[in-house]
Amino acid sequence: MAGSGPWWERPDLRYRDGRLEFGGQDLAAIASAGTPAYVYRAGRVRENLARLGAALAAAGVPHDLYYAVKANRYGPLLDALRGWGGCGIDACSPAEIRLALAHGFREQEISFTGHAVSDPDLEVLAALPGVHVNCDAISTIRRLGRHGPGRRIGIRLNPGLGAGYNERLRYAGATPTKFGVYPDRFEEALAAAAAAGLAVDTLHFHVGSGYQGDALDVLAQVLEGTARLLDAHPEIRRLNVGGGLGVRMTEADVPIDLARWAAIVARHAVPRGLRVAVEPGDYLVKDAGLLLAQVNTVEDKAGTRFVGVNAGLGILNLAAYYGIPYVVAPLQVPPGSQRERVTISGNINEAIDLLAEDVEVPALAEGDFVAFLNVGGYGSAAASNHCMRGEYRETLLPGDA
Amino acid sequence: MAGSGPWWERPDLRYRDGRLEFGGQDLAAIASAGTPAYVYRAGRVRENLARLGAALAAAGVPHDLYYAVKANRYGPLLDALRGWGGCGIDACSPAEIRLALAHGFREQEISFTGHAVSDPDLEVLAALPGVHVNCDAISTIRRLGRHGPGRRIGIRLNPGLGAGYNERLRYAGATPTKFGVYPDRFEEALAAAAAAGLAVDTLHFHVGSGYQGDALDVLAQVLEGTARLLDAHPEIRRLNVGGGLGVRMTEADVPIDLARWAAIVARHAVPRGLRVAVEPGDYLVKDAGLLLAQVNTVEDKAGTRFVGVNAGLGILNLAAYYGIPYVVAPLQVPPGSQRERVTISGNINEAIDLLAEDVEVPALAEGDFVAFLNVGGYGSAAASNHCMRGEYRETLLPGDA
Repeated sequence: MAGSGPWWERPDLRYRDGRLEFGGQDLAAIASAGTPAYVYRAGRVRENLARLGAALAAAGVPHDLYYAVKANRYGPLLDALRGWGGCGIDACSPAEIRLALAHGFREQEISFTGHAVSDPDLEVLAALPGVHVNCDAISTIRRLGRHGPGRRIGIRLNPGLGAGYNERLRYAGATPTKFGVYPDRFEEALAAAAAAGLAVDTLHFHVGSGYQGDALDVLAQVLEGTARLLDAHPEIRRLNVGGGLGVRMTEADVPIDLARWAAIVARHAVPRGLRVAVEPGDYLVKDAGLLLAQVNTVEDKAGTRFVGVNAGLGILNLAAYYGIPYVVAPLQVPPGSQRERVTISGNINEAIDLLAEDVEVPALAEGDFVAFLNVGGYGSAAASNHCMRGEYRETLLPGDA
Repeated sequence: MAGSGPWWERPDLRYRDGRLEFGGQDLAAIASAGTPAYVYRAGRVRENLARLGAALAAAGVPHDLYYAVKANRYGPLLDALRGWGGCGIDACSPAEIRLALAHGFREQEISFTGHAVSDPDLEVLAALPGVHVNCDAISTIRRLGRHGPGRRIGIRLNPGLGAGYNERLRYAGATPTKFGVYPDRFEEALAAAAAAGLAVDTLHFHVGSGYQGDALDVLAQVLEGTARLLDAHPEIRRLNVGGGLGVRMTEADVPIDLARWAAIVARHAVPRGLRVAVEPGDYLVKDAGLLLAQVNTVEDKAGTRFVGVNAGLGILNLAAYYGIPYVVAPLQVPPGSQRERVTISGNINEAIDLLAEDVEVPALAEGDFVAFLNVGGYGSAAASNHCMRGEYRETLLPGDA
């Protein structure tokens, strides 16, 4: 078995007799009910969540987990998460807070961190005193303060260092990024909070979207950088290390060693008696979701085999806009199937609408179904109706929460 | 007056007494009713349409214009277009065809050109025999043929040359692109049509999205390239030159000289007695629309002044994803206002959500309104609810159709 299948196979996602199964279910059967279709396995989300919590627990880190709902707001998935307990919601807009409340999360289980927070946004927050707010600008602190004193807040620090799936997704890099308060103005931010009667109890930062195992040194460096602030301000009782933990998107990606990750966090949090908050989005949902589509056109054009499918960048934009690859997997691979190099093109009238470029896959024919793997996060969440090709089904794998 | 205002001022979009007016109306008043808001001036669309038609008429080119509805599908705009007459719809999906029909366009006024056209798409087309279909693959021809003979179709040619706002938007460039049939397989495409009993009456091509005046040589080259095919196939009675005519996005852009553009088209069409079809999208709507937003946060971060607004890449993604700049114009500029360099950041929690980077604008303060110009095309059309920040108003400038 080992070594013979594709690198991404795992017990709950693998070929059996040439048919791709997810949670033991035949995906071709699900695709036959209509494509394009996002399919999520709640059980995988639960496993990802448990793995993260267990790593922190093993390192002796008292912690709170908040799911970054911007990654995927599919209702049944939120209901499942709520049902398991032990995980709150990280929201970045008032509408996300309302969504979380509608799915039964309590104010106290919601952490808000937004950018370009407007006065109407702040009015919503003011009416929900139990929601914890991390302010990403001194302006936000000042304006939130106008709604009255007494609230406990966090300050989002821009660590000036970042990591992520690629350059576009490093939230805090060498050039100034829009997020957070840079260290040179941190005291000013604290003074603004004090002037407004807000108690700063949390230091928040985020290093990027989708960092892999080889980025843990960056995380360690960022935490080293916060040490001075944490020591100078013992009133800060909570360290929010943001989200951004990535999943393997290619065979070359180095998986995150969660034990090492937790140890880095523990090194700074435990001796100071800090409680740690984590805001995983992709880490919980990305590898728990896939998009099923159907091939409608196979044609050689100027030496490239283009495989056209009934989905496109309108409903899945990670490849076209971010250069993030997904794995392409035919749902059925006949015995002795040849492998060939193809470019998978989407049905949006834009040249950049390529769902995979120059990838080697088992030969595809018109009518075949394919899955795009690792699209459970930031897939449907950012879908548009561009070219009016925006329709898709969305479903939890039945009997699997 | 001349030379004193910004380069983009025009009679219907200009400052008067420090307040930005669009079609003679004060934009700050419109912004006060709620932001973010897309505002379109139908009269400008009409002017753009008339200018294009007049250029073709002056060059003696018999022509049909089809508005590429993928650029902007706002209903009242479509109603206005329908009311004026003289312009059909270029659709790229069944849903766009249904939208056009719902707004009163007749089948005969609709031209369809899609990519990765599925069998269900073809069933819709088969039921609408009056819609003209340009096939962008031999596969499409073959599968359309299964629905019965007799239909007249076009073949989309991939000219292997392209131009556009930038590299990402050249639909047909040196590396193979997904669109159309390359010249080396054109005879094969004709044979497939003949075998299926479909009559090829149109040669279609498209050179890119947003080509400027300095790209007319590329258009001329592409047309030279089609000469052999047109001469060899006198049964082709119509030349569809696609869309892609751009508008000036920066001061450095060379405006399209429409007389020269029409002359290039005429040189090939008129001697052969061909009717010409054009599919303008951006050219009609881009400079007829703007997005109004409100500044909520002004803050210096690591030497950069970030101006946060209540809009972001979810509802306007041209800058973040395509690198297409828009002009940023405050709705009110007090006398003696200083100019400063700023980066405008959107309210989506992504580092790339910058609506303008390092631009010089009159000083902005929290609470100010700004307009993003030249966003009438591919702005709202590709909007998503990413981060649940997807709400916006959309309106035609009142009393202006």
